[in-house]
Amino acid sequence: MACVSYERACALTRAAMRHAEEIGSPSSVTIVDEGRNLVAFARHDDAILASIDVSQAKAYTAASLQMATADLAEHVQPGAGLYGLSGGQAGPFVPFGGGRPLMVDGAMVGAVGVSGGTPDQDDEIARAAVDALPEVPA
Amino acid sequence: MACVSYERACALTRAAMRHAEEIGSPSSVTIVDEGRNLVAFARHDDAILASIDVSQAKAYTAASLQMATADLAEHVQPGAGLYGLSGGQAGPFVPFGGGRPLMVDGAMVGAVGVSGGTPDQDDEIARAAVDALPEVPA
Amino acid sequence: MACVSYERACALTRAAMRHAEEIGSPSSVTIVDEGRNLVAFARHDDAILASIDVSQAKAYTAASLQMATADLAEHVQPGAGLYGLSGGQAGPFVPFGGGRPLMVDGAMVGAVGVSGGTPDQDDEIARAAVDALPEVPA
Amino acid sequence: MACVSYERACALTRAAMRHAEEIGSPSSVTIVDEGRNLVAFARHDDAILASIDVSQAKAYTAASLQMATADLAEHVQPGAGLYGLSGGQAGPFVPFGGGRPLMVDGAMVGAVGVSGGTPDQDDEIARAAVDALPEVPA
Repeated sequence: MACVSYERACALTRAAMRHAEEIGSPSSVTIVDEGRNLVAFARHDDAILASIDVSQAKAYTAASLQMATADLAEHVQPGAGLYGLSGGQAGPFVPFGGGRPLMVDGAMVGAVGVSGGTPDQDDEIARAAVDALPEVPA
Repeated sequence: MACVSYERACALTRAAMRHAEEIGSPSSVTIVDEGRNLVAFARHDDAILASIDVSQAKAYTAASLQMATADLAEHVQPGAGLYGLSGGQAGPFVPFGGGRPLMVDGAMVGAVGVSGGTPDQDDEIARAAVDALPEVPA
Repeated sequence: MACVSYERACALTRAAMRHAEEIGSPSSVTIVDEGRNLVAFARHDDAILASIDVSQAKAYTAASLQMATADLAEHVQPGAGLYGLSGGQAGPFVPFGGGRPLMVDGAMVGAVGVSGGTPDQDDEIARAAVDALPEVPA
Repeated sequence: MACVSYERACALTRAAMRHAEEIGSPSSVTIVDEGRNLVAFARHDDAILASIDVSQAKAYTAASLQMATADLAEHVQPGAGLYGLSGGQAGPFVPFGGGRPLMVDGAMVGAVGVSGGTPDQDDEIARAAVDALPEVPA
């Protein structure tokens, strides 16, 4: 079964951290498995401390909903269908860029969460982990 | 290394409490270090009890994001980029005035959080602590 | 009515912190009022971080039970009458030395909690605050 | 200033994970900085899920108390001086082997927490991180 092994999670974390360095955005990077449980985490020296919990919440959100956190924003606005989902007690759902599910052959094997920069930067760094997925052994 | 020592934290707390008295706004004042751990706290006799936790959350927020909590407000409104950050489970992020990071030579050494008055009053009192920073020994 | 005013709390905190310095035990000192709500807090530079929450829990315990936390130990042992009180979810009750109620004319006006040293050291420092109580204006 | 940088934390995590593999004890490994904030985390594929939170609690405990969690056990037994510290609400204090402070020149720069095996195995793996500390650049 496809999964996010420890080796794979470390490789994805490294890919994301390297991309964060390339674009100059000190970050926290979280990788969770298909059960939303933490597999790997790393934080740059200069990353703001908020990035620790927010990156984990983004990975939790992406794995919980099997969608990119950036795409959640429109659905949780006042008047939209999922208004009230974020900010509630049903889970730490974060509705802005930086969390993405990790998909293999159409199945979710885990998720990545990135925080530390703007939502756009965080999402770009998360995509670096997603893009590295086919290249690293399961 | 620059830091918020006990002596410094007490001096900053006194500066903020004095300013609160001058403008007639009974307050709670929190000082945390660069790791967001509590160093000093004081509450005026007439300060509302909500000010205890809110001042600590403001200091936590300012240290976590390295920004003034007053500047966070616009970013967490419906439709804005960080909508959903405050009120969630990723941390007690407070998006209104009263929390400010304490910066020395470009590095954050801690943060101050003030609550008890209006956000504008709280922020003015927090700035009194920030302004006193260069005058008190590290 | 007798109370722990802000001024009084600061004076008691200073008395305890000074005593901690005299006996060489870096400490956190917490003062709460008769409602168990935080009035003042201070932490020495070298105090272990555990002292932050534990000093507050001791003050909470002493104010909640109107007794010294050192005297609680025997009552929470296996087989004793209050076994299960500490360590539960009914409150952060700490059953070892360092917390003492602040009594004026037989009425509890608040409590002090000290942590950072041994329970005996912490209790000695808490007593320094209690001893200073008659000397500081309400 | 001595600290647990991202590079150092990753090297210590790898050292601990490798030792865990050598002794056949699938583990979670947590590294926190001197403020008890997460810097790095990794979990083996076969590590029990409890190891995620327990390893973090052990690192928190070791950094909070500046002592090995294995040494805390005797102090929290019924009748001992700190009975009631663990299991309470003053913090997630874990009183068995697997957490150790990271000391450089007598100052604590962070802590390691390991969980997944027996407390003895976890502590041995934590010591592998401590032993690697002088060999990795700050």
